[in-house]
Amino acid sequence: MLIGNAVVGQSGGPTAAINATLSGVIRGCAEAHRAGRIETLYGMRNGIDGFLQERLVDLGERFFDEEWLSALENTPAAALGSCRKKLKSHEVDGETYARMLEIFKRHNIRYFFYIGGNDSMDTVLKLSDYAAAHDYEMRVVGIPKTIDNDLVATDHTPGFGSAAKFVATTVKEMIADVNVYTVKAVTIVEVMGRDAGWLTAASALPSLSGKGPDLIYLPERIFDEDEFISSVGAALEKHPAVLVCVSEGIRFASGEYVGAGSQSGAVDVFGHKYLSGTGKVLESLVKERIGCKVRSVELSLPQRCAAHIASLTDLRESIGVGKAGVALALDGNTGVMATIERVSADGYSVEFGMADIKGIANAIKTVPESYINEAGNGVTEECLGYLAPLVIGENSPRYDHGMPVHVVI
Amino acid sequence: MLIGNAVVGQSGGPTAAINATLSGVIRGCAEAHRAGRIETLYGMRNGIDGFLQERLVDLGERFFDEEWLSALENTPAAALGSCRKKLKSHEVDGETYARMLEIFKRHNIRYFFYIGGNDSMDTVLKLSDYAAAHDYEMRVVGIPKTIDNDLVATDHTPGFGSAAKFVATTVKEMIADVNVYTVKAVTIVEVMGRDAGWLTAASALPSLSGKGPDLIYLPERIFDEDEFISSVGAALEKHPAVLVCVSEGIRFASGEYVGAGSQSGAVDVFGHKYLSGTGKVLESLVKERIGCKVRSVELSLPQRCAAHIASLTDLRESIGVGKAGVALALDGNTGVMATIERVSADGYSVEFGMADIKGIANAIKTVPESYINEAGNGVTEECLGYLAPLVIGENSPRYDHGMPVHVVI
Repeated sequence: MLIGNAVVGQSGGPTAAINATLSGVIRGCAEAHRAGRIETLYGMRNGIDGFLQERLVDLGERFFDEEWLSALENTPAAALGSCRKKLKSHEVDGETYARMLEIFKRHNIRYFFYIGGNDSMDTVLKLSDYAAAHDYEMRVVGIPKTIDNDLVATDHTPGFGSAAKFVATTVKEMIADVNVYTVKAVTIVEVMGRDAGWLTAASALPSLSGKGPDLIYLPERIFDEDEFISSVGAALEKHPAVLVCVSEGIRFASGEYVGAGSQSGAVDVFGHKYLSGTGKVLESLVKERIGCKVRSVELSLPQRCAAHIASLTDLRESIGVGKAGVALALDGNTGVMATIERVSADGYSVEFGMADIKGIANAIKTVPESYINEAGNGVTEECLGYLAPLVIGENSPRYDHGMPVHVVI
Repeated sequence: MLIGNAVVGQSGGPTAAINATLSGVIRGCAEAHRAGRIETLYGMRNGIDGFLQERLVDLGERFFDEEWLSALENTPAAALGSCRKKLKSHEVDGETYARMLEIFKRHNIRYFFYIGGNDSMDTVLKLSDYAAAHDYEMRVVGIPKTIDNDLVATDHTPGFGSAAKFVATTVKEMIADVNVYTVKAVTIVEVMGRDAGWLTAASALPSLSGKGPDLIYLPERIFDEDEFISSVGAALEKHPAVLVCVSEGIRFASGEYVGAGSQSGAVDVFGHKYLSGTGKVLESLVKERIGCKVRSVELSLPQRCAAHIASLTDLRESIGVGKAGVALALDGNTGVMATIERVSADGYSVEFGMADIKGIANAIKTVPESYINEAGNGVTEECLGYLAPLVIGENSPRYDHGMPVHVVI
């Protein structure tokens, strides 16, 4: 039985639920502490970057602090800080690995939990391999997190449901907004997602309880300018306010990002190149070829941090997968990622499982063909069926001065 | 005692609370109906525009439909539709006024309620004058609404508190988000408000319960590029993640909008002029003169329609001011606007009053000098004291499929 300390880190882009997973890891380690398996849990500041500088904080003090843990679960972004570091292989950069091993030994760290997306799982893979090769007994477990929902081996990723709920709710509210006037007008909403269209697909959810977007474009299909203009024109014939949701990552047949074009020529008053996005480019396109009123809205940062409209389903699962990750490590697993499995027999429920980190680290799960309509400008019933349960349930964070309470570590 | 029918319209830009005011008017008229004063209440579709086409809907059917009224109070934007029409004077366009009088007479309309901002109050003024001059007894009452909070004669405007709560909550969440990395980075948040900085000032509210924006720029002060760059630079010396909130309406000493410059020269791949805003211009400026990582976020449409994070204080007052408007008309007033008066003796409470529409129609209330700090890049304690009570309280709308329920009229 492996007894020692544990460490947890957060990595990659923030989400509204990554701190719920951190809370799950703390809760799991608190139980293990009670059972005499884990002495304390360290948090590494700014992921592996801060770990290498030994910037650790003792989270054992919070093991049974229910009020604090509950506030943490409602705090967006990564409370421990994050980083975007991708480790080189130990053949190339042995020094970094040796430094880590030294820190592991100094603090008797035997459990390593890393909450993140693709790049973070790559870190888990490399660390677990390295520890094994150097006969240092340590359990390295990855815990998934990304608003992009693009990790393989898990039904969906913690953080995605909350981002999807924000996108769906905001799109529903904007549909109410743009429909107040009788003048023909097109609104283009740009949603995050460079390689996978999951979050953009979630913009279709308002159609389950009323009007949805008129058109939806995902990066999984080639973007055809002529089809777009003709579909927008057809929608304008039906009603004056047309709303289109597009993924920031849509590309032309040439492979070039639609949003990349805007970076190539235009300069502003300071002589600096514009970095406008996909929505701005399509706004210009509609203005040029249709000529009606048009505006673009980039949903931007709130997609990954709007904790006030988090999905309760997502928050609960995010806590659960954090606890599950600790259980996997205590059971002797290393080099694995905790996963969410959908149990569909009777309604929606999930179980937590695990998958070998090797097949996960550098793979991307895109939206399958059967989830996209034939014309490539909308999603199917099957897609809505997959998405719908993930946004169910409202969170009720504590408020202070009319704003949600956040904790700072 | 004037007995007859009533009509209500919504005008100008949407807010998260304008339907709460509509509900207040319906509730007020329902009571008047019980008292035998008002037979029924018509809703005009798309404001005065739809009224001129006699596009009316009978809202009397909803007088006592509590479930529907409650859902209406949680529905963003203008459920009756809106318009941006400003009436010409009756000397110039007598035909339009004659047409309206004809419709008033045909439906025996004796009470006219118009919910809106500046332009809408101008309509109230002209209509009440016209009716009086033509011996048609009718009570014309304006009910304030605008996220801009720029109407005079009222302590604040219905709709502003909810927009302020959205801005403050979102800024607080983004502050958590941008602080996860250790790399120097500037985030510029562009807030609505062309002539008055009230909504941008609300971005300071997170400072009451933690970290607020580093810098805040309102249109009430001239924007000085050098001061801006020097203040951003100084903030970057203190911590790596700097967040700045700016009003879309800030101007250079020349009087030119900061956001206007971007429209003058740059063209995109389609040869079309860019219409980027203030945030994009400042993003380029920081990139050019400081050279660190920088991004801009335009809060855009959700500011006026994010009903899911509406302020309960605002919603209650919005209903109250609607009811108060009906009471004013029943009491014999015409050519007035219902107002909100702050009673500050013991904590925060309000009373509803009225003001002559003449002094309101074309005036703008800007943020007073004493609410802005000396450097012109932040707000004062006095400003926070004014704003704080307006965002208190959370709404709990009904949810269906994980999204708030909206009604469609």
